[in-house]
Amino acid sequence: MKIAVIGGVAAGTSAAAKARRTDPEAEIVIFEKGSDISYAGCGLPYYISGIVGSRDDVVINSPEEFEEKYDVEIKIEHEVTQVLTEDKLLHFSDLSSGASGKYQYDSLIISTGAGPVNPPIPEIDLARIFNLRTVNDADKIKNTVKQEEINEVVIVGAGLIGLEMAEAFNHLGLEVTVVEKLSHVLPTFSGEAAAVVEEHLKEQGVRLIAGDGVDRFTGKEKVETVVTETGREISADMVLTAMGIKPRISLASKAGIKTGAAGAIKINRKMETSISDIYAAGDCAESTELITGKSTWVPLGSTANKQGRVAGENAAGGSNFHKGITKTSITKIFNLTAARTGLNEKEARDAGFNPIIVKITAVSHAGYYPGAENIMLRGIFDRDTARLLGAEGIGKEGVDKRIDVLSSALYSKLTADDLFQMDLGYAPPYSTPKDPIAVLGMVADKKLKNIY
Amino acid sequence: MKIAVIGGVAAGTSAAAKARRTDPEAEIVIFEKGSDISYAGCGLPYYISGIVGSRDDVVINSPEEFEEKYDVEIKIEHEVTQVLTEDKLLHFSDLSSGASGKYQYDSLIISTGAGPVNPPIPEIDLARIFNLRTVNDADKIKNTVKQEEINEVVIVGAGLIGLEMAEAFNHLGLEVTVVEKLSHVLPTFSGEAAAVVEEHLKEQGVRLIAGDGVDRFTGKEKVETVVTETGREISADMVLTAMGIKPRISLASKAGIKTGAAGAIKINRKMETSISDIYAAGDCAESTELITGKSTWVPLGSTANKQGRVAGENAAGGSNFHKGITKTSITKIFNLTAARTGLNEKEARDAGFNPIIVKITAVSHAGYYPGAENIMLRGIFDRDTARLLGAEGIGKEGVDKRIDVLSSALYSKLTADDLFQMDLGYAPPYSTPKDPIAVLGMVADKKLKNIY
Repeated sequence: MKIAVIGGVAAGTSAAAKARRTDPEAEIVIFEKGSDISYAGCGLPYYISGIVGSRDDVVINSPEEFEEKYDVEIKIEHEVTQVLTEDKLLHFSDLSSGASGKYQYDSLIISTGAGPVNPPIPEIDLARIFNLRTVNDADKIKNTVKQEEINEVVIVGAGLIGLEMAEAFNHLGLEVTVVEKLSHVLPTFSGEAAAVVEEHLKEQGVRLIAGDGVDRFTGKEKVETVVTETGREISADMVLTAMGIKPRISLASKAGIKTGAAGAIKINRKMETSISDIYAAGDCAESTELITGKSTWVPLGSTANKQGRVAGENAAGGSNFHKGITKTSITKIFNLTAARTGLNEKEARDAGFNPIIVKITAVSHAGYYPGAENIMLRGIFDRDTARLLGAEGIGKEGVDKRIDVLSSALYSKLTADDLFQMDLGYAPPYSTPKDPIAVLGMVADKKLKNIY
Repeated sequence: MKIAVIGGVAAGTSAAAKARRTDPEAEIVIFEKGSDISYAGCGLPYYISGIVGSRDDVVINSPEEFEEKYDVEIKIEHEVTQVLTEDKLLHFSDLSSGASGKYQYDSLIISTGAGPVNPPIPEIDLARIFNLRTVNDADKIKNTVKQEEINEVVIVGAGLIGLEMAEAFNHLGLEVTVVEKLSHVLPTFSGEAAAVVEEHLKEQGVRLIAGDGVDRFTGKEKVETVVTETGREISADMVLTAMGIKPRISLASKAGIKTGAAGAIKINRKMETSISDIYAAGDCAESTELITGKSTWVPLGSTANKQGRVAGENAAGGSNFHKGITKTSITKIFNLTAARTGLNEKEARDAGFNPIIVKITAVSHAGYYPGAENIMLRGIFDRDTARLLGAEGIGKEGVDKRIDVLSSALYSKLTADDLFQMDLGYAPPYSTPKDPIAVLGMVADKKLKNIY
């Protein structure tokens, strides 16, 4: 049994490790274009800010460690250039030597990930304009801040990475401006939740320009100014572009593998692609969104890990599946936690539900016990069935807990009343006798009853 | 409509408040034997230790505030001595004046709570031997520590209150010895989980004597020594007895109301007792345990609040219900969190399940991000169906979150695989790409598959 894995970050290494555990005899090879494998992409902002002390901390295994641990051959700086699916043959090129080669596989796992979207903005190729996807990207940013005269940094895009990096640069003492084309930060969140985050960013000294895109960059060799579509000129010693990512699917497409939601590789619950014995997992692959059952593309490390595990097990002759996702995401922005799960209002309406919004504010734990903080929870419920469809939480403490419970409630298709009924743990340091989840359920239940 | 409520702590005040919201016209009277209402019983250890600064912080509403807020008449220091159910008549006695009176009700809510179990241990009536149930009890303990020469304190009973008070007394600089008759602390937890807590107590300087009951107290007027069944003599300037509580049901029993699990008042999902128009809620009433559907008695503030709310709504002519509980409890013991939910191994076996235990240790969030701590999760699963039956968690961070998610999983009758599939929020400060819940699910799933 010969298993090839293309791409060795979250999904690829999970797949290889699980394939090894499933079949101790198999030959397993990972082809990785870059020079690092199995790094924690989500940890890079903390590596740049110095909150995480060492590069080794975010690189979970070096290629040598991984080879040793899992008896898997790792070919770094090897780019797979072609997949001949009829012949089950890969063509690859060794980027360091320029040599090329072939590899015959029985099962193939594609985990090529996602790459940054870099729109054709004039002068986007100037020096000191960076993306952040790999550890090498992080090294370049870190070295630039350390070795050059950097005071003002502009971040283009106010998604999760953009805002996490706003905190990181602020932590390093830089003047940070975030430019977002859309009307508010965190595009997957409601405007209401985003407004709380925006206020907090201002308090922390981050300048925010929303509702204005980047028209062009200017500078000689190095970037000097970011010019927005409305003509604002923002002086910049460095720029981070974080305008989103897109699945890397050109290799799969060329091989005739079908794509699905948002152009990601189409897969079933077993991570099988449209061509037999070829699996896909991670940021290059779609997922099933469990509330509507529809395909979606939400590239996140946790999903990549699970999909990789399932692909690895199945590729090695085992049997496993990944049901799907509820689109849960969470981020720390300075002292705030912003988290979401499920559908937003528009998605709920588009899926044929009849959504109502219920918003509550409650304390994270007993008000008399030190450290209690307000949590804002915003739930979306279906008027007709009282079913929870989605939720957001914003606050300084205990938001992660409530969103995980609500994500679990979505997984189980629970209703507003169920949120009141669930028996969540109560002691003064952790909660209130009526947990914020129960309060959300009670308020929603009342609102739903009053409608009819 | 005249609604009488007997007992004005968690369930009684929740009931009265909800009855008022349900029927703005009703006459609502609370009869409370003590002098405080609506206090946070679970907050008393923190009031004693001084972590909570003021008495007002744990007394959520004074009688005057509550009367004002909810238009409810509150008769403190009024003991109801008899309920004539045929005539819907209460007899009461004003404890301050000695006067007696009658009250005619349409609906009655019994929320008489629970009282401490004080076994007939010789000399248990000596001075400086205390219980802790009410704010007055807490005041007495607080004043004794403040005004007398107290250095050594013995706590009899290592349940939640006993251990929370061990922390409180330690915080006040006292030498603390805990004596527990059973073989380990926290009797509702497994010995394995309890061992971790015991180790932590020792690290904090608390002396623990387990597997040894109290034979007698000795002293002249004031307690001086605690003598155990094996003959240990422990010198004590003060003693706290925390040997459990029992439902206060004598009034209900005399009135012919049926009792159920553990002698608590039998109720249905609407909080109706065996006599029409009489409801019961809180620590004096039983609950339905949702995994087996059987009646049980687990007196906790969160359940009291919910049951009170439901009883109040129904007593006032509305319609609501409380499904039951999964027996979730949580406590902070110094820097540790110990939490549990669902059945233990014995309960699972007694209920006809075929339980297996799965234990994992995982980090609370990404190891490279500051503050990560190990969490021990111990799940009980049914061999035949893979269904989660119960769980325990011990650790210094993130235990409350995992137990709430597992409680929600129990509520929804989820399986080991579901724990892997759920889409929990991941970012380095909050979790790992495979959350400890997912790891528990994966390990359980593997173990279950290998059995058959």
